[in-house]
This record gives sequence, structure tokens and C-alpha cells, in this order.
Amino acid sequence: MDAQVKPHERLAHALAEPLAEVDAMIRARMASENAPRIPEVTDHLIGAGGKRIRPMLTLAAARMNGYLGPYDVHLAATVEFIHTATLLHDDVVDESGQRRGRPTANLLWDNKSSVLVGDYLFARSFQLMVETGSMRVLDILANAAATIAEGEVLQLTAMSDLSTGEETYLKIVRGKTAALFSAATEVGGVIAGARLDLVQALERYGDALGIAFQMVDDLLDWQRGDDIGKNVGDDFRERKMTLPIIRAVAAAEGEEWTFWVRTIGRGKQEDGDLERAEELLHRHGALDGTRETAIAWAEDAKEALSPLPDNELRDMLRDLADYVVARIR
Amino acid sequence: MDAQVKPHERLAHALAEPLAEVDAMIRARMASENAPRIPEVTDHLIGAGGKRIRPMLTLAAARMNGYLGPYDVHLAATVEFIHTATLLHDDVVDESGQRRGRPTANLLWDNKSSVLVGDYLFARSFQLMVETGSMRVLDILANAAATIAEGEVLQLTAMSDLSTGEETYLKIVRGKTAALFSAATEVGGVIAGARLDLVQALERYGDALGIAFQMVDDLLDWQRGDDIGKNVGDDFRERKMTLPIIRAVAAAEGEEWTFWVRTIGRGKQEDGDLERAEELLHRHGALDGTRETAIAWAEDAKEALSPLPDNELRDMLRDLADYVVARIR
Repeated sequence: MDAQVKPHERLAHALAEPLAEVDAMIRARMASENAPRIPEVTDHLIGAGGKRIRPMLTLAAARMNGYLGPYDVHLAATVEFIHTATLLHDDVVDESGQRRGRPTANLLWDNKSSVLVGDYLFARSFQLMVETGSMRVLDILANAAATIAEGEVLQLTAMSDLSTGEETYLKIVRGKTAALFSAATEVGGVIAGARLDLVQALERYGDALGIAFQMVDDLLDWQRGDDIGKNVGDDFRERKMTLPIIRAVAAAEGEEWTFWVRTIGRGKQEDGDLERAEELLHRHGALDGTRETAIAWAEDAKEALSPLPDNELRDMLRDLADYVVARIR
Repeated sequence: MDAQVKPHERLAHALAEPLAEVDAMIRARMASENAPRIPEVTDHLIGAGGKRIRPMLTLAAARMNGYLGPYDVHLAATVEFIHTATLLHDDVVDESGQRRGRPTANLLWDNKSSVLVGDYLFARSFQLMVETGSMRVLDILANAAATIAEGEVLQLTAMSDLSTGEETYLKIVRGKTAALFSAATEVGGVIAGARLDLVQALERYGDALGIAFQMVDDLLDWQRGDDIGKNVGDDFRERKMTLPIIRAVAAAEGEEWTFWVRTIGRGKQEDGDLERAEELLHRHGALDGTRETAIAWAEDAKEALSPLPDNELRDMLRDLADYVVARIR
């Protein structure tokens, strides 16, 4: 296959067969004879043909260890359900913030559906895990679910809090992204019956990949000229304490500190503030520093893979770690 | 003990010791070192000293079958966590409806916390179940969670829909109340290692009790002179298709039908409509009929208990079924 083909596309090709089973399972389990609204709400999310990174992580982790199914398919669908449920609940949390306390009735209707359909997907994912019959898998995913929810609450309370440090940021990032990435790879290893040290290696890979992924996401918020449909500085406007801002705040003194207190701490933002924030980030090397930290996590992810069986799937996971940070190079 | 003492108070007395353990477990598991907001939000809900009906159902079901712990305590805490999580998510769904699309920023902040802390409690409950090591328990509670979420979505879509029939109503009621009641009693029997027919009897008891409980709740919405802090006709104003309304609508013709189409179907309510609705409910015996149906479900609950060991706890559960419908006599 062409070397220019992206690693997630190569994974999708190598895992085409089980991925098709995952898709079929997702469609079957989303259905609800009692509440037809449920597939209506989830269809555009799950059916929109996202990259399916998380289910591919589970399938790759299981199959690189020689597993041939069927329960990696259940677990891949589980992971995608959990991801979709958190997206639905994030919508409620994020949208209401953006509209500054004045959502439309239509938005509220969506909020109701988002909350309840998210709950339904959580319950469905839970049923899928039970079908695997593996208590270890249930334990891993229950812990991941708690970390995810805790991280979301932490993000909510850390917002606009200038005292937020890198340790808290890492907990938030684990909740937002890395906990599900690492659970996805870990349960793949567990269901394959892999040795404990290999399962731990997979868990570490998923964790580091997820952290790198989220840091890159936070960096892209400051990157101009992309057609990813996001505006530059959304996080700044929403007063989120992302790593670049945390580092610029840590280096701030005098007037700079006053600026952050006003714009992030008190949320009094004016024209020109975004440009000033960017300037401060550059002045203190906060963007370059975050980029280096993200690359270090990607290296850690690749390093984690070394004890795993040397095969094509492992190579693709290694390339995936490079690709995640290549988005910002 | 005085015969005037209510059955749930007698249960609380008989189960005082394990209930104290449940309370301690709930407090311990609510805590989050990473996100102190979580106990803040849950404290007033769980700590407010509710009747703890659901955890008592689990403890009673286990102990009437000779179980001495410890996992009924985990499961009782699980059930209370799930109940609290659904209350938190219901708040989001109900409050936003009441404010007609114009909630305050403060309300929205609560919405965010409600969604995320509810998710956290779901995850915590899931961890507690895993600790019991019983895959059968996990299966029962996963199915209950799916039924609950489905019922909530169904209620949302059935709202203001005059074609809603009694079959749909029963599905909604199972989702709102009976699914968790029956899971609570069923897992109590399972963890006690009770025979399959006894587990099924417990499941049927919880289901019937929950249905009677919810029907009474829907009737109380029309009862004047209570100091329960609810206004008469809240369900009518919110255009909920409860059993009394379903029956009055089923009997409606001509002008009566036009009335329901306007007030429930299109939501155009005026002064005097509530009184007119009450009059129609009385004219068609919809309140008396619902009361009879609720009593029949309570009888079914009592009947279900007959194969279970004849002891004090069983007597209390029987009296509890009578008490639930006595509220409307």
C-alpha cells in the first residue's frame, strides 16, 4: 500500500472485516423498538463515518496478539458507544455554555434527547461488555467510565481557574481522551488472553497516545489556516485552561498576569484580546513547549509498543502515534 | 412495634445495621479527590435522608433468603446511586421544560453538573457491581439501565401525543420506576443464592410494586389538600400522558376530544382548562379506574411474595405494597 496512505486508513484496511462487524453490531444495538427517537439521534453521530480510532485500537490490540474474535468486536462497539455517549453529554455541557444562558427551545429539546440517548448508549455498552463474560474487562471499563466522568467534572470546575496546574490538566486530559484510549487497547489485550506485561504495555500505549492526541487538539485551537471548522481561540473564549495557556500564565508577571486575570479569570474579553493572548503564548514559547510535550508523549506511546509481537498491526499503531503529532508539525 | 408505624419505617428498623453500612459506602464512594464538586452536588440528594426504599428492597430480598452480607450492601448502594443519577438527569430534562426555553445561567450551570455528576454516579455504581463478582447481577443491572433510559426517551416522545395507549404507558412506568424496583429485589435474591423461582418471585414483586407506586404518583397529581409541595395538575400542564388522562382521552368524543387536542396535543392551555380536565376525568371514572388498577398491581405484588420464606421481612414487604396504594385511599 502507498506509503502516503495515513496510518488510520491502513488500520481500517487491515481490520476491514471485523470493523464491518463492529458497524453491524452498532446498528443492531442502537435500535430500540420502544423508542424510535434513539436511532434518529445517534445515526448522524455514529453513522457519519468518523475515523473509528477507538474501535480500531481495540481490534488491533486483540488481533496483534493473535485473537480471532468474536468478543473484540463487542468491545470495539462498546468503546464506540461510550465515546458517542460522552459526545452527546458534552454537547449539553458545551452548547449551553456557548449560548450564554439563552438557548433556544430547540436546543433544549436536543439537550433532553442528548442526555437520555447518551444514557441509553451507556446502558447498551454495558450490556455488550457483560456478553463477553470477562469480569476483568468490566472492571477496566467501569474504572475508565469513572475517570471519564471525573475528568469532565474537573474540567468544568477548572474552567477560568488560573491556579490550574499541569497536574490537573493531565487529569482532565486523561478523563477527556486518554482513559478511553487506554481502556480500548487494554481490553483488546485482555480479551486476547495476552500476558500481563503485554496488557500493561497496551494500556500505556493507549494512555500516552490519548494524551498526545488531546494536547495536539489543544494546540490546533491556536493554529490558523486549517479548514477544520473551528475558530482560532475557541478555548480562550471559553476560558478553558489548556496546556498552552497554563504555561503562559505560569510565566506571566505584572501586566501579563492582570491580562489573564481579566480575560480568563473574570471573563471580561474585548477586541484585540485574542491577538494579545497569542502574542503572550509565543513570547513564552508556550506553543512550542506544548508541541514538544505532545511529541514526547507520542514517543512514549511508540516506546510502550516494543514488547508486543512484531507484526504489521504493531507497525501501524507506531505510525499512528507519529501521525497524531504530525498534524501540528 | 406499634402497628401504626409505617412499613418502610419498620423495614428501616429491621435493616438498621446493613442500612448504616450502605450509607457509609455511599459517602465513601461519592467522594472524589479529583473533583470536589461531585460530593457537593450529590450530598443534598443522597444525604437528605430519603426513604431509601430501593436499597431496603435489595437488603430485604437478600436477607429474607438468609443472606448475611456483605455484597447486598454493595448492591443496595449501587441501586441508590443509579436512582440518584437518574434523578440528576431528570432534573435536566424536566427543569428545561418548565422554564419554556429560557433557563437562567445558574440553572444551566446546574444542568452541566447534573449531567456529569449523574454520569459519575453511574460509573461508580458500575464499579460497585463489579466488586460483587457476579456476572448475573451485572446482566440484570445492565438490562435495567437500558430499560430505564429507553423509558425516559419514550416518555419524552410520548409527551403531548394523544395516541399514547396503556401499553406505552406501562413501558414508560417500567422505565421510570419499576425496572429499578425489580432489579433491586432481583439482585438481592441472586446475591443470596436463592432458587430461580424465588428470584423470579422477587423480580415480579419489585415490578408490580414499582408500577403501583408510579400509578399512585400519577393519581396524586390530581389530589387536592396534600402538602407534598406539588401543584394539582402539573402533569396536565406539562402535557404528560399519564394513565388518568389516557383513559379520559380514550373515552372522549366530539367537544371533549377537541378539548384534549387543544390542551394536550397543541399545548394551548387557558384559565379554567385544569378544572375542565378534572371534570372530564371524573365524568369517565378515569381517577377511580386508575386507583383500581394500581390496587390490582399492589395485590399482584403481594401475591408474588407467597413462595418466599415466611418471615418478618416478607411481611413488611407485603405491608409495603398495601401502604403504597393506601396513600390514595
